[in-house]
Amino acid sequence: MRAAVLREGRMIVRDDVPEPVPGPGQVLVEVKACGICGSDLHFAAHGADMLAAGADMEGVPDLDIDLAGDVYMGHEFSAEILDAGPGTEAPAAGSLVTSVPVLISGDSISPIVYSNTTVGGYAEKMLLSAPLLLPVPNGLSAEHAALTEPMAVGLHAVNASRIEPGEAALVVGCGPVGIAIIAALNLRGVETIVASDFSATRRALAATMGAHTTLDPAVDSPFHQCRPAVVFEAVGAPGIIDDVLRRAPAGARLVVAGVCMQPDTVHPFYAITKQINIQFVFGYDPGEFAASLRAIAEGEIDVAPMITGTVGLDGVATAFDELGSPEEHCKVLVTP
Amino acid sequence: MRAAVLREGRMIVRDDVPEPVPGPGQVLVEVKACGICGSDLHFAAHGADMLAAGADMEGVPDLDIDLAGDVYMGHEFSAEILDAGPGTEAPAAGSLVTSVPVLISGDSISPIVYSNTTVGGYAEKMLLSAPLLLPVPNGLSAEHAALTEPMAVGLHAVNASRIEPGEAALVVGCGPVGIAIIAALNLRGVETIVASDFSATRRALAATMGAHTTLDPAVDSPFHQCRPAVVFEAVGAPGIIDDVLRRAPAGARLVVAGVCMQPDTVHPFYAITKQINIQFVFGYDPGEFAASLRAIAEGEIDVAPMITGTVGLDGVATAFDELGSPEEHCKVLVTP
Repeated sequence: MRAAVLREGRMIVRDDVPEPVPGPGQVLVEVKACGICGSDLHFAAHGADMLAAGADMEGVPDLDIDLAGDVYMGHEFSAEILDAGPGTEAPAAGSLVTSVPVLISGDSISPIVYSNTTVGGYAEKMLLSAPLLLPVPNGLSAEHAALTEPMAVGLHAVNASRIEPGEAALVVGCGPVGIAIIAALNLRGVETIVASDFSATRRALAATMGAHTTLDPAVDSPFHQCRPAVVFEAVGAPGIIDDVLRRAPAGARLVVAGVCMQPDTVHPFYAITKQINIQFVFGYDPGEFAASLRAIAEGEIDVAPMITGTVGLDGVATAFDELGSPEEHCKVLVTP
Repeated sequence: MRAAVLREGRMIVRDDVPEPVPGPGQVLVEVKACGICGSDLHFAAHGADMLAAGADMEGVPDLDIDLAGDVYMGHEFSAEILDAGPGTEAPAAGSLVTSVPVLISGDSISPIVYSNTTVGGYAEKMLLSAPLLLPVPNGLSAEHAALTEPMAVGLHAVNASRIEPGEAALVVGCGPVGIAIIAALNLRGVETIVASDFSATRRALAATMGAHTTLDPAVDSPFHQCRPAVVFEAVGAPGIIDDVLRRAPAGARLVVAGVCMQPDTVHPFYAITKQINIQFVFGYDPGEFAASLRAIAEGEIDVAPMITGTVGLDGVATAFDELGSPEEHCKVLVTP
């Protein structure tokens, strides 16, 4: 079968990937749509650094990936059931499903994110775990269902902030993560959502997705124009955290959802003086994933404006290049 | 009257300081004991940097201090009432009191911490605000009552952590702040308190004050020997925060109580992957200050082992020098 894989830092299309065979508890699915995530771009460009940083770190299992081999990616997918493994209860063939990106194989659990062996959503077919499947309800399209995962990231960040509707939120950066946070803040009933981005296109999308005010930080500091109780950092570039610590009001909470891969410089003195709380967030839990699907399917979050492009497997490499300068794009879907 | 003041980076004794005159709502007190705080050493050595960092920061009022003039310091005091300002209700002359280090003068509020004008506890006499006075109960000595303020810092850090008795705590650094945190953890009933310091003297004091296990980080990482839910950073030197982020278990909470004045390098990637929460803390609220005095006066916290020296005003400069290499000392009291 065909799959787009990472080989030596570039996405290439292979047509000789063996079709995976579902084991007990697994299903074989046909991928209908899979979003391209910023973390995939990061991994393609800086995979070795990410693996080295992971290996330096204690307290979490290492990613076991060989960058000399092909790497499967794609973790924001919706798919149609083709077949189930031996003795496996699963939705009927043809059912549209999504799932947290985790594959259970006997006693082992593999993230479906970067792997030399576990095929992800940038492929015609892949395996999923029957107990983790969520049927896509309400006739929701495969394209919109594929947004379940990125929107769950925003929902998790907002839940972790414990923001109350009367507290003002500032979202710094309106890429896909920032937009997902804005949508989740709006869903939670937050009455003051301010969004900051250099890009006019992104500011317009932020307003569409629920921001009440949008700001261009090139014109003036967002902190001169609002007094947020909670700041969501959704940029992930060096210097942003320190800038927030320097400018934020005393007692502010900072939720760091942007993934800055480089070492970063901060002034602890700023944060101490103002008793700032920083909650670093990552991913979501299965309940948040299911809540995200429900909110999209019920029409509480309209993800349509976020989808700015659709490509086949052959277009993945070009899409990765274009997303490197993401002014024009929010979410690009791969429809294998 | 006599006072030890900071002049051109050194503590000197002046005998020509005008005796302050209490206004309405103020009392004149005779200082009985005043602890030397690490932040005073910081300010003496790096005052210009601290003022510059403060001026860079938004969201908090600037400290209005002229380093070309003499600076009064001393914010960990107990004192005896001498006289009250016009129309001011206050405890009887001779009463032993303490207070949060804040002086109210009409409509203005001045911290009693670093000031060109508001005399602090390194002086024979000073002004306090009558509404903020706490009588020292139970015949507690002036020396022990002077520990109210630093112990309140520990209590505040522990309250901010929201630690539960069944959660393990690691305290990194056993200077006065770390020791105050250990005492507060012990008071809260935390069942596993692990303390880490390079100094054997400090580790022994940590054990005396309530640590169940003490570790020398030169021998092995504390994180190889315990799995803390909450880590208290009480060192305040560059590199410590990042080391905790790298080694701490996933989901750990980090309370930063050490005041690192320099820019510091961190890897946000570590904190994101492990979804770490960092609460920066500073000071205490008036309720915590009162609770600290109560705990000391009731004998729930025995501060006696923390007092490792007592000096007169003439000894302040030497004490500042000795506390620069603090292996031998915890808290030195000035008894003017």
